[in-house]
Amino acid sequence: MPQGYVLGVGKTRFGPTSKSLPSLAQEAILAALKDAGLEIGDIDAFIVANYLGGPNEGRLHLNAVVAGLMPGLNLPGWRVEAACASGGVAVHQALLALSRYERVLVVGVERMSGIPGMQLTRNIGMAGDLDLDQSAGLNFPASYALVAQRHMQAYGTTTRDLELISLKNHDNARLNPLAHFYHKTVTQADIDAGAMVASPLRLFDCCPVSDGAAAAVLSAEPRDRRSVPVLGSALSTDAISLSQRSTHTSFAAARTAASNAYRQAGVTARDVDFAEVHDCFTIAEVVAMEDLALCDPGEATRLIREGVTARDGELPINASGGLKAGGHAIGATGVGQVYEVVQQLRGEAGGRQLGKARIGLTHNVGGVGGTCAVHIMGRPDES
Amino acid sequence: MPQGYVLGVGKTRFGPTSKSLPSLAQEAILAALKDAGLEIGDIDAFIVANYLGGPNEGRLHLNAVVAGLMPGLNLPGWRVEAACASGGVAVHQALLALSRYERVLVVGVERMSGIPGMQLTRNIGMAGDLDLDQSAGLNFPASYALVAQRHMQAYGTTTRDLELISLKNHDNARLNPLAHFYHKTVTQADIDAGAMVASPLRLFDCCPVSDGAAAAVLSAEPRDRRSVPVLGSALSTDAISLSQRSTHTSFAAARTAASNAYRQAGVTARDVDFAEVHDCFTIAEVVAMEDLALCDPGEATRLIREGVTARDGELPINASGGLKAGGHAIGATGVGQVYEVVQQLRGEAGGRQLGKARIGLTHNVGGVGGTCAVHIMGRPDES
Repeated sequence: MPQGYVLGVGKTRFGPTSKSLPSLAQEAILAALKDAGLEIGDIDAFIVANYLGGPNEGRLHLNAVVAGLMPGLNLPGWRVEAACASGGVAVHQALLALSRYERVLVVGVERMSGIPGMQLTRNIGMAGDLDLDQSAGLNFPASYALVAQRHMQAYGTTTRDLELISLKNHDNARLNPLAHFYHKTVTQADIDAGAMVASPLRLFDCCPVSDGAAAAVLSAEPRDRRSVPVLGSALSTDAISLSQRSTHTSFAAARTAASNAYRQAGVTARDVDFAEVHDCFTIAEVVAMEDLALCDPGEATRLIREGVTARDGELPINASGGLKAGGHAIGATGVGQVYEVVQQLRGEAGGRQLGKARIGLTHNVGGVGGTCAVHIMGRPDES
Repeated sequence: MPQGYVLGVGKTRFGPTSKSLPSLAQEAILAALKDAGLEIGDIDAFIVANYLGGPNEGRLHLNAVVAGLMPGLNLPGWRVEAACASGGVAVHQALLALSRYERVLVVGVERMSGIPGMQLTRNIGMAGDLDLDQSAGLNFPASYALVAQRHMQAYGTTTRDLELISLKNHDNARLNPLAHFYHKTVTQADIDAGAMVASPLRLFDCCPVSDGAAAAVLSAEPRDRRSVPVLGSALSTDAISLSQRSTHTSFAAARTAASNAYRQAGVTARDVDFAEVHDCFTIAEVVAMEDLALCDPGEATRLIREGVTARDGELPINASGGLKAGGHAIGATGVGQVYEVVQQLRGEAGGRQLGKARIGLTHNVGGVGGTCAVHIMGRPDES
C-alpha cells in the first residue's frame, strides 16, 4: 500500500532572482495547488523546508511567514531544517503527518542571491561539523574533494568520469525550462577552462547556489488519475563529522535510507527506471548510484561512460539536470526532485520526458552524508 | 484514546553554562532514556528542536550533530525550528511520527550564553516579521509591550497585576532545582528597582535568556505505570506580522490550538488542574490563560490577584517557575514544559508537587503568537 499520494506539484525556476523568500514560496504553493486542482482552504497542515533563512537574511520562524500568505487559516505548520536534505525530510514528515491531517502541503524555499561570497561560504558550512571538520578547513568542496580522492584511490575513478557527469547533467538542463542553467550550453572547452576549486574538483564539478522554491500537496488517498503514489519513504542520519565515519567512498545514511525505502516500497534497485540524485558535486552522483545499489561499489563510472545514465540510456540519472545544472536552491532541492519525478511518472515532462518511467526515485543528502532522504514513487495509473 | 505516551523525560538546569550545545543535548537525552528505563538502541527516530544554533554559533544540521552522539545507529531524525515554539512543535511531530516509528526521542536544546547582547537581540528578532514589524522597531519586548498596552486599555489590566505574576513565578522557581533562578529570591523591592524595558514592561516582566536542554521519549503504547498519556496535541499558526492581526489582546494560533487540543482530548478547560504556559513576558501569561479559555477574556488578572493561579491555588500556573523564572532555553522550552507536567502528573515533582494534578496542559508560543503548540496530558494510572 502506498505511503501516500502526491496530488500536485509546483516549482519556480531555480537560479538568481530578485523575488523575496515569501514570494518564491507563494509562487510554488500556488502552482502546486493549481496542479492538484485544490485551493488553500483544502489544505490541513503545511511544512516549510528551508536551510539558510536565518543566517542569510534574518528570517527564521518561516512557518509563520508562510502562514502570513494564508491569512485567517491558522493551520498547523512548521519549518524543518536538515541542511541540503531539508526538502526530502519535509516530504517524509508530510507522509507521517497524513496519519492525522488529510492534505499536507510541503514547500521548500531558499534565497542565496546577494549574500557576499565569504559569508555565504560560512553559512553553507554550518551544515558541516563545527568542532572537528570546519575548523580543519574541511568546507564542503574540500569534503567532497576528499570523497573524490578516496573514490579514485579505491576504484580508479578519474576526473574524466566526473566531467562526463557534468556534461550529461548540463545537457539535460537544456531541456528543462525551470533549470538554473537552462540557457547555457556547456562544452568540454568550458570544463577545461574551469578553475580548480578543491582538487580534484574543478568549477564544473560543483553545483551553483540557486534561489527557488518547490511545493507538493500530499494526501493519504489519491484524488484523481494524476495522483502519484509514494511507494517508499525513508530517512536516515549519520555523524556529522567525517572523522567519525569508517568510509569516505559511501554514505551510511544513504545506504540505510535506500534499503529501508526499497523494503517499504516492495521493490529492488533493479526496478528503478530513473532517479533524481543529490549531485551537489559530480562525485556525489557516483556515490549516490552506488549507495542506492543501482550498481555495485566502483561500478557507477562504467555506467556513466557507457551512457547508461544518459537521458536515452537504460537508467537515466538527473534528467532534470540535477543539482549540477538544474540548480540547488537548498531547502527546495528535495521537493524539486519530487516535482521532477512526478512530472516524469505522469508523462508530463515535456521535451525531457523519459521513455520508460514507471518507478522513479529521489535521493536528497544533507551535509556530507549527515542526512539522507529517499523516496520511491510509482505511476499514477498503477496505484 | 491517547495520542501517545511519554515514557520518560530528562532536563538539564536552564541557565548560563559553559557546556556545548551537543553536551547539553546529550545530558538531557541520557536523563530521559534513564527515566524511561531504555537505552539509545531502543529508539527508532529522533527530533531535535532548536532555534538559534545557526545565527548564534554557526551550528545547523543539528540532527546530524545529535546523530554523532549515537554512532552507527543511522536513525531517522530531523531538526525543527518554529522560534520559541520549536519544542512544543517537536512533541507534536513526535506524536505524528508514532504512526511509523515505535519510540521517538525528542530533544530541545539551546545555547545563548556568550553571544554579545546586540547580536543576540538581532538573532532573537529573527522570529518576528522582517518586512513590517522589525523594521519599525517592533522587537520582542516592544511587541509584547504593545500587547500589554492594548490589554490594559481593553480590560483595565495594571502593572501591579503583571508584578504579581513575576513574584509568583519567581517564588515557584525557588522550589525547582533546574530553574534558571532557583537560587534567587525576588522581592517587591527588586521589581521596583528593575529598569524599564519597553513600557509598561520592566526588567522583571521579562524572562531571561537561558542555555539548556530537555528531552522526552514518546511511544504509541505505555511501557509501565509511569508512562504519561498525551490526551490532546494541537498546533496552529498565524501571520507573523502584528500588522496582519485583527486583535492584539489575544493570539488566534493559541485559541485554535487550545480548542483543537481540548476536542481531541475530550476535555474542557474546566478539567485542567494546572498548566505550564509561555510567559516570555508577564503579559503573555495573562493572554495565555484567556486564550486557553481557563477564564473569560479580561478575567485572568482577577484570578491572579485572588491567588487562584498560585502553587496552592485552585489552578496553579507555571509551578515550575515558567519561562519568567524557570528560564527560557528557547528550543528546549516546549519540551521542558512537558518535563514539568509529566513530573507533576506522576507525583514526582518533589518540593513543588501540586495537590491536585490529574490533567495538565502545556502552552508553547513562537514569536508574538505566530505559532502555538498545546498539549494536554493525564495521570499515568488513568490511561
